[in-house]
Amino acid sequence: MALAPAVSPLARFTIDGRSIVITGATGALGSAAARALNALGARLTLVGGNADKLDALAAELDGPGPVETVRRRPDTPDDAEAIISAAVKTYGDVHGLLVASGTNHVAPITEMKVEDFDAVQSANIRGSWLMCQAVGRHMLGRDGGGSVVLVSSTRGRLGHPAGYSAYCPSKAAVDLLGRSLAAEWGGAGVRVNVLAPTVFRSELTAWMYEEDEKATATREAMLARIPLGRLAEPEDFAGALIYLLSDASSFVTGQVLYLDGGYTAC
Amino acid sequence: MALAPAVSPLARFTIDGRSIVITGATGALGSAAARALNALGARLTLVGGNADKLDALAAELDGPGPVETVRRRPDTPDDAEAIISAAVKTYGDVHGLLVASGTNHVAPITEMKVEDFDAVQSANIRGSWLMCQAVGRHMLGRDGGGSVVLVSSTRGRLGHPAGYSAYCPSKAAVDLLGRSLAAEWGGAGVRVNVLAPTVFRSELTAWMYEEDEKATATREAMLARIPLGRLAEPEDFAGALIYLLSDASSFVTGQVLYLDGGYTAC
Amino acid sequence: MALAPAVSPLARFTIDGRSIVITGATGALGSAAARALNALGARLTLVGGNADKLDALAAELDGPGPVETVRRRPDTPDDAEAIISAAVKTYGDVHGLLVASGTNHVAPITEMKVEDFDAVQSANIRGSWLMCQAVGRHMLGRDGGGSVVLVSSTRGRLGHPAGYSAYCPSKAAVDLLGRSLAAEWGGAGVRVNVLAPTVFRSELTAWMYEEDEKATATREAMLARIPLGRLAEPEDFAGALIYLLSDASSFVTGQVLYLDGGYTAC
Amino acid sequence: MALAPAVSPLARFTIDGRSIVITGATGALGSAAARALNALGARLTLVGGNADKLDALAAELDGPGPVETVRRRPDTPDDAEAIISAAVKTYGDVHGLLVASGTNHVAPITEMKVEDFDAVQSANIRGSWLMCQAVGRHMLGRDGGGSVVLVSSTRGRLGHPAGYSAYCPSKAAVDLLGRSLAAEWGGAGVRVNVLAPTVFRSELTAWMYEEDEKATATREAMLARIPLGRLAEPEDFAGALIYLLSDASSFVTGQVLYLDGGYTAC
Repeated sequence: MALAPAVSPLARFTIDGRSIVITGATGALGSAAARALNALGARLTLVGGNADKLDALAAELDGPGPVETVRRRPDTPDDAEAIISAAVKTYGDVHGLLVASGTNHVAPITEMKVEDFDAVQSANIRGSWLMCQAVGRHMLGRDGGGSVVLVSSTRGRLGHPAGYSAYCPSKAAVDLLGRSLAAEWGGAGVRVNVLAPTVFRSELTAWMYEEDEKATATREAMLARIPLGRLAEPEDFAGALIYLLSDASSFVTGQVLYLDGGYTAC
Repeated sequence: MALAPAVSPLARFTIDGRSIVITGATGALGSAAARALNALGARLTLVGGNADKLDALAAELDGPGPVETVRRRPDTPDDAEAIISAAVKTYGDVHGLLVASGTNHVAPITEMKVEDFDAVQSANIRGSWLMCQAVGRHMLGRDGGGSVVLVSSTRGRLGHPAGYSAYCPSKAAVDLLGRSLAAEWGGAGVRVNVLAPTVFRSELTAWMYEEDEKATATREAMLARIPLGRLAEPEDFAGALIYLLSDASSFVTGQVLYLDGGYTAC
Repeated sequence: MALAPAVSPLARFTIDGRSIVITGATGALGSAAARALNALGARLTLVGGNADKLDALAAELDGPGPVETVRRRPDTPDDAEAIISAAVKTYGDVHGLLVASGTNHVAPITEMKVEDFDAVQSANIRGSWLMCQAVGRHMLGRDGGGSVVLVSSTRGRLGHPAGYSAYCPSKAAVDLLGRSLAAEWGGAGVRVNVLAPTVFRSELTAWMYEEDEKATATREAMLARIPLGRLAEPEDFAGALIYLLSDASSFVTGQVLYLDGGYTAC
Repeated sequence: MALAPAVSPLARFTIDGRSIVITGATGALGSAAARALNALGARLTLVGGNADKLDALAAELDGPGPVETVRRRPDTPDDAEAIISAAVKTYGDVHGLLVASGTNHVAPITEMKVEDFDAVQSANIRGSWLMCQAVGRHMLGRDGGGSVVLVSSTRGRLGHPAGYSAYCPSKAAVDLLGRSLAAEWGGAGVRVNVLAPTVFRSELTAWMYEEDEKATATREAMLARIPLGRLAEPEDFAGALIYLLSDASSFVTGQVLYLDGGYTAC
């Protein structure tokens, strides 16, 4: 009686050959994702607003998978449609989507301009929604479903005293975009999950690594609540992403997975 | 040794004399709130976009508290500022705010227009944010803090298969607006909490009470998951609102209280 | 058309005449509850293991409601049955139950004795379960349902680095006892909710108010995460308890309400 | 500038050579775990109370990793100590622990015997605590930390109307055991996470797959809330377990990961 796995359990983590679209590809999380997935043989479509950065990232990737770039931001339905269409045209299909574009604006609500609030919502939740709409139109019509990974934050769950009235709501919205589409698309085999990191080193968070008083106080306050005693690194993001994009997680949908060193646990 | 309460514990639920602003005042939740708070002697500012409905509601209220109306929707910072200013001008102060305005649009994401997505975000989260900004500018400068109550939904926590990709994110955003402002304003004694009902009878939900097949199926599926076996009534909202607006909840902030008959518990 | 509330919305907070059992009655939360409910005219059954403390508490209560005491701890089904029977015998009925008994034992898990782990589970979750069983046997057979309030903690949701491997699980268990019984009993109109305070001044927490180095560091670390900037007082517990025991919360069941100054919100 | 990953990102999922202890090894989840980890070259210690079943499982495993068995249940500190000691003696170390032992007893609380309640707590939370204590005494003293995976359930988060007043609390306790130890052990690099499946085919759940009326109704009610439209299979458990036991999740601790097809998302 052979009940042992017919294939290696690691085979279920296969990324090789998958057509995966990454928005915000030149950011900290997007580029970490691109490096890992390219090394594993994914067929990538890298999306971003800055042509020079896109070219530099594409030039750097020397893994086995092909890479194309699309210089667009998902600001309109046409943009999102064009991004997915470019991937389909190049690779014939899209198996996975990572929406890693986003931004932040920190200010007390009493001093924040509504334009800045709107910009955060647009980049974080509206852009995610547009990309999901476009990829859904493709994935719901194909056999085999697909896997969508959105990017949220511990701040989608927890408030913060220092002026996060734009960011926290936008990331909570991403969490529930994941849950609502998990419910809406599960029957078609399209899974939607959310990765929620704590602070990663990036352009947005570079100030936290400075040695000035505010940065030090903020960083030490963070670390005092992170049991594992460090901030996040690109590799931390890659492992979770491979798990969620691959068949290894084929029964997981609508979940928010925190990459936070234990921050939300205590 | 007299350790018993010096005043009746019910005195901490006092609403009498409080200046309270209600947006979305002519909706199902807003008008339930208006009736209850008026009966308890609150000094009310009722806000809505429909002058006839506002007048009808104001005319109906025969409790001991005074009532004024402001025909505006919180679409811009100026609107929100004007609403709070009107209340301050009339009553000299604002102690509480209930943001009960909101809307929904149900469609599969693949068929939803981005304009409809935008309209839901604007009414539910952007309007809440604008009202909070305006009331914060007033409350943070006064002694004694204040109490803000936002309205979310069980759909701010749970996805839904039937086309809620606009609504769920917008309500999750409201939950985290509450948490972020609870963190930001706690030091000034301004509390922010969220009431999250399941289906209330209202213009938005009236279709669920019909006898057609879709309504019956939807209603019965809901009731099968509601241990208390009924949908919500206006009185259910009033009790929680009085608790959160009054000093009875003076140590409660950043919380989401579900008025759902147990829907989220199982 | 008279749509205004027929009776004062505050009437729904009525406690007067309700027969309510309180276990752990001589503890910090239990005695705060006893004082508030006695002042409001409840018919109380105070339960605890120390006759002297019970007598002292009963003697102190000079509100309009009658008070009886039962010197027992809910260690066995017979104890729990005897407690509820005593209340029924005296007052003819039981409308509400507050389980405020509990304990803690703090030590690194590697140094904790399993007997101490067991003692915490027994006092916190097993005692709550036994009281629920006994009161359920009474309440499920009466018209009009009833309201049960259990006591958990922010530590039922969040871990703690300083040796809470007994306490945290025991309080999480209380939260889910509430949810499971909310689901099980909702059809009979018996509601079950949970109050989850952060640190209250009590025998268990008195050490945190000392001036030694450990107490000061612990207290300041707590306050740094509590937006409202203080620890909890008995009145904070009373308001929430009145809300949950009364008809004002008649559509609320299976909920965990945090009395924490915003601790869990950020 | 070589910023691409120096090693394959899949290398971080390596299980080969890891010494991993599995309690409840002959159950549905434990044996699924044993098959997957054995195929990946783990050095396994299989723990259970039934010698015949242990022998049968060990005989079946034909992957590259060595297998030893320990016929014990973690009923006492000595049992737990003996289990970990056996693994250390055989393999020189323990890198990972999976606590997959557990049980259930379903009955209305008013009819449940306290002995059955106690048995569920003992198997599910007390056994998990004892195993954690024993492995912690080993792991906290070694370089390189370790990874502990506990098994909870969607019922650790959600109540159930059909008599889960023993099971739900026991699994919620497991969730918070994970969180409290994540906080307590993070500084030593020992991670603790929780896998929470919905219904798996197992001895406990076999009745749900029958064709009688109760089974069909229960199964269909479950599937109606599972967007992915099926119950869980052993492979679903294996993928998540490999992720959590390996370095791929080295920044993840104190998390509860639901393997539920979207059940908790809607």
